[in-house]
Amino acid sequence: MSNENDIPDFPTSITPQSQDFGRWYIDVVRRAELADYSPVKGCMVIRPYGYAMWELIQQGLDKRFKATGHVNAYFPLLIPESLLMREAEHVEGFAPQVAWVTHGGTEKLEERLVIRPTSETIIGTMYAKWIQSWRDLPILINQWANVVRWEKVTRLFLRTTEFLWQEGHTAHETAEEAQEETLRMLGVYKDFAETELAMPVMDGQKTESEKFAGAERTYSIEALMRDGRALQAGTSHNLGQNFSKSYEIKFQARDKSVQYVHTTSWGVSTRLIGGVIMVHGDDGGLILPPKIAPYQVVIVPIPRGNWKETVLPKAQSIQAELVARGIRVFLDDRDSQTPGWKFNEWELRGVPIRMEIGPKDLEKSQVVLARRDTREKLFTPMEGLVPAVEELLNTIQRALFERAVKFRDAHTSNTDSYEEFTSIMDGRPGFVISPWCGSDACEAAIKTETQATIRNIPFASEPATGKACVKCGSSATVHAWFAKSY
Amino acid sequence: MSNENDIPDFPTSITPQSQDFGRWYIDVVRRAELADYSPVKGCMVIRPYGYAMWELIQQGLDKRFKATGHVNAYFPLLIPESLLMREAEHVEGFAPQVAWVTHGGTEKLEERLVIRPTSETIIGTMYAKWIQSWRDLPILINQWANVVRWEKVTRLFLRTTEFLWQEGHTAHETAEEAQEETLRMLGVYKDFAETELAMPVMDGQKTESEKFAGAERTYSIEALMRDGRALQAGTSHNLGQNFSKSYEIKFQARDKSVQYVHTTSWGVSTRLIGGVIMVHGDDGGLILPPKIAPYQVVIVPIPRGNWKETVLPKAQSIQAELVARGIRVFLDDRDSQTPGWKFNEWELRGVPIRMEIGPKDLEKSQVVLARRDTREKLFTPMEGLVPAVEELLNTIQRALFERAVKFRDAHTSNTDSYEEFTSIMDGRPGFVISPWCGSDACEAAIKTETQATIRNIPFASEPATGKACVKCGSSATVHAWFAKSY
Repeated sequence: MSNENDIPDFPTSITPQSQDFGRWYIDVVRRAELADYSPVKGCMVIRPYGYAMWELIQQGLDKRFKATGHVNAYFPLLIPESLLMREAEHVEGFAPQVAWVTHGGTEKLEERLVIRPTSETIIGTMYAKWIQSWRDLPILINQWANVVRWEKVTRLFLRTTEFLWQEGHTAHETAEEAQEETLRMLGVYKDFAETELAMPVMDGQKTESEKFAGAERTYSIEALMRDGRALQAGTSHNLGQNFSKSYEIKFQARDKSVQYVHTTSWGVSTRLIGGVIMVHGDDGGLILPPKIAPYQVVIVPIPRGNWKETVLPKAQSIQAELVARGIRVFLDDRDSQTPGWKFNEWELRGVPIRMEIGPKDLEKSQVVLARRDTREKLFTPMEGLVPAVEELLNTIQRALFERAVKFRDAHTSNTDSYEEFTSIMDGRPGFVISPWCGSDACEAAIKTETQATIRNIPFASEPATGKACVKCGSSATVHAWFAKSY
Repeated sequence: MSNENDIPDFPTSITPQSQDFGRWYIDVVRRAELADYSPVKGCMVIRPYGYAMWELIQQGLDKRFKATGHVNAYFPLLIPESLLMREAEHVEGFAPQVAWVTHGGTEKLEERLVIRPTSETIIGTMYAKWIQSWRDLPILINQWANVVRWEKVTRLFLRTTEFLWQEGHTAHETAEEAQEETLRMLGVYKDFAETELAMPVMDGQKTESEKFAGAERTYSIEALMRDGRALQAGTSHNLGQNFSKSYEIKFQARDKSVQYVHTTSWGVSTRLIGGVIMVHGDDGGLILPPKIAPYQVVIVPIPRGNWKETVLPKAQSIQAELVARGIRVFLDDRDSQTPGWKFNEWELRGVPIRMEIGPKDLEKSQVVLARRDTREKLFTPMEGLVPAVEELLNTIQRALFERAVKFRDAHTSNTDSYEEFTSIMDGRPGFVISPWCGSDACEAAIKTETQATIRNIPFASEPATGKACVKCGSSATVHAWFAKSY
C-alpha cells in the first residue's frame, strides 16, 4: 500500500493463522464485532455486524425454501418430557444435552419441560393432529428458531449452548417423495453455500454412527477450513416412518388404507458464519464474499484541504448511485478517525471493496478501488464507476470460490495405505479419501488412532470395487472422506 | 351472493360475534389456520397462514427500525438469576412469572437460569462492556426473539406463555435523547399500526401503576376492538438511568466526567395479529387489510365446460401480471374443492379481493372482483385489470382504517360524572374519557368497581384545568382514557 491515502496508524492485534488458528479465529470474531462472550456459560451474543450476515443468510435460504414450495411457521420452545421420550433413539441422542425447566414462577411444574434441542417431537405431534388424508400431504414447513443443547466445550458460532438455525420438517405420502425431498434440500444447501458463501462443499451420506438420532439416513455438506479441518455445514435427514410411528402421524391413503407418513428434517445454523470466516479469512482478518457482506463497499474520503466541500459531496453522490443499484455501501465520513484507522478497520471486517477518494483523485476524475481478497489497488475512472463496481463484486465472489476450491483440492489426498493415512493425518491437514469396508469397528478405530472421522460418503465418490478397507484390509464397499473436524 | 359463480356448499361454523365475541375470536383463529393449541400448556403453534402475517409485520417494522438508524442483534435466551436480580423493581415485576431452568443434561446447575421474559438485564450487561466513551453512543439495537412469561390465563396471540416479539434497547448520552428516542419509536408503532394494520391507535402515557417494571415513563398505543375492549398494542419505555445504575453502564462524557447512560426499550409482539383480527373481522371470519394479507387476491376459476383450456390459462396469465406488480396472489385451481367451498374458505381467511373468472366472464372479457370488506361484487373489464386491482387494494386499505376510526369514535364517550361512568362501563363498551386527579387510589378504586383501567393519558388529551376527578371530585390533572381491556 503506497499512495497518498495510506496512513497506517492502527496496529491490528490478530494472532497469525500460522501461529494459532483457533486463536486467530476468536480474535477475528471479536475484533470484527461479529459476536462476543456473554455472562451465560456457553451462550454468545451475536453483535450487529454478525447478525447482519445472519440476516443475509436467512434471506438467501428463505427465498430458496419458498421457491421449493415451503412455508414458515412457529412451534413452541418448550417440550414436555413425555413427548420427547416417545422416539427411543432420539431420546438417547438428545436427553443428555437438554436444558430442563422445572419451575414456572414460584410453582414446581407437574411435568418437566425441555427447551427444544430440535423440534421433531413437537412438530410431529402437531402433524398428527393436522393430517387426516393424503389430500393434506405433503406438508412442507420450515421454522426459524433458537435451540439449546447443553455443550461442555463451546466456541463462538461453531458450538454454543444456544444457537439460531432453521429446521425444515416435511411429511409425505410415500418413501420416494421423502427421499426426493431429503436430497432436494441438501441440494439447496449446497447451492446456497457455493453460490452465496463461496464455500465449496462435498455432499454425501453420513455413516450409521454419525447419523441423526432417529433418522433412517442422514446426508451432509462438508467444507474444508483453512486449517485443514472439516466443518459439517448442513444436514438433511430422511426420517422414514420412525417419527410417524412414535407420534402417530397417520393418514388415509388413496386406497383407503391407513398409513404412516414419511418425514424428513433438515437444518443449517449460525455455524455457517464460522464457516465463512474460516474458509476465506487471512491474517488481516475477515474476507467476506460480496453476497454475504453487510457492506459490499466502504467509501473512505481522504480528508485533505476543503474535503467537506469537494470530496465529501462526490462521495455522497457515488454512494447514492451505488445504493440505487442495490449495492450495500457504507460511507465512513467520521471525523473522529483517520483514514489509516478506517482502512485497517474495514480490512479487519472483510469489506470486499474499499473505495478511496481524495482531492487528487477528484482532479484526475478517478477513485481507488482496493480489493480485500487480493489487496490489489485499481485506479478506476469516475465514468462508468457503478458498472465497474458491480463487475468487480462479481469477480471477487467468483475468485473467492475458486480460491477455496483450489485450497480444498490441494488439501485432499487419496490413499489405500493405513500407514500413509496416519502419516497424512499427523502432518498434513485436509481430507483423505480412502476405501472403507463399512464397519463401525474400523470407523471407530480410525477415530481413536488418528482423530479423523468419516465426514461423509460423497455422492461423487469413486466406486471401491476390488479395493481393500484402509483399516482392516477386508473388502471395501465405498470410498469415504475422512478428516479431523470441528 | 347470486351469480353463476356462487355455490354455497360449505357451512361455516363460526360463533357470531354478537353471541360470544371471545368464542368468535378463537373460532376464527383456528378455522382460518392462523394458530392452534399445542400440547404445551399456554403455548401456541403459529401456523403458516398466521406466520405469514407475522413475516409481513416484521418486514414493515424492520424497515422502519432501520430507517431510524437501528440495527439488529441477538442476545442469549437464558439469564442467570443473579443478573435478573440487580434491578429491584424489575425483579419484583418479572420474577413471579419466569420459567426456571435448573438442570443442564443430567447435571444440576450451580446457578439457576431464567428464560428471558424481556432482555433489559442481559443487554444492559453487554452494553456495560461495550460502552466506554460518548463516542460509542448512541447504541440503537433491536432484537427479534421469543420470550416466556408464565401466564395463568392464556388466549391465542393475545396472551401466551411464549410469544414472539421485537425488543429495541437503546443507550444515550443525555436524558433528552433518550426521551426523544422513546417517543420516536412510539411514533413508529403508531404509524405502522395505522398505515399497515389499518388499526387506529391512541398514543399516550401510561400511569405510574401501569408502567413497565423499572421504567421512568411508559408510553403505549391503544386500539379498540369490535367488542369495545381496548388492546395495548405496543409500548415504549424511557428507563432513565435505572438500568444503567443497576448494570453499571457508564461512559466518559465529553467533559471527561464519568456518567451513566440513559436507556430506552420498546416492543410489539405477535399480539398485533390478535388486534388485526378483532379490529376488522366479522361473522364471516377474518377481514385482512391488504398490506398485511398473506394473499391480497385469490383467483377462483369457475370450472364449467373445458375450463382448463380456456379459463385456467387466462387466470394464470392474470396471476403472473399481478405478481409482476408485487401483488400477493393465490390461484386456487384445486380440483378437489368446489368454487362455493373456495369462496367460503377465502372469505373466512379474510383475503381482501376474490377474483372469479368463468366461461361467461371470458366471453364478456371481464372478471368479477368481490370485496371481502363490503362484500360488493364489481364486474371489471380485463382491459386495465391490474391497475384496477391495485386501486381497489388501496381503497380497501383506506376503507378499513376509516371504518375502524368511525367505530372507535362511536364507542368513545366523555363524562365528568362517576354515575354515568359506571353506567357506561356496565352497558356500553368502549373508551370513556374522564378527568382524573392522578392518584393511584382513585385509579385502583375505579378498576375494582368497574373493571376499567386507564389505558393511557393521550398526548392529544384535552387539558383538565378546572375539572374535578371523576372518582374523588378533587382537582383533576388530566383527562384519562378508560376502558376494559385484554
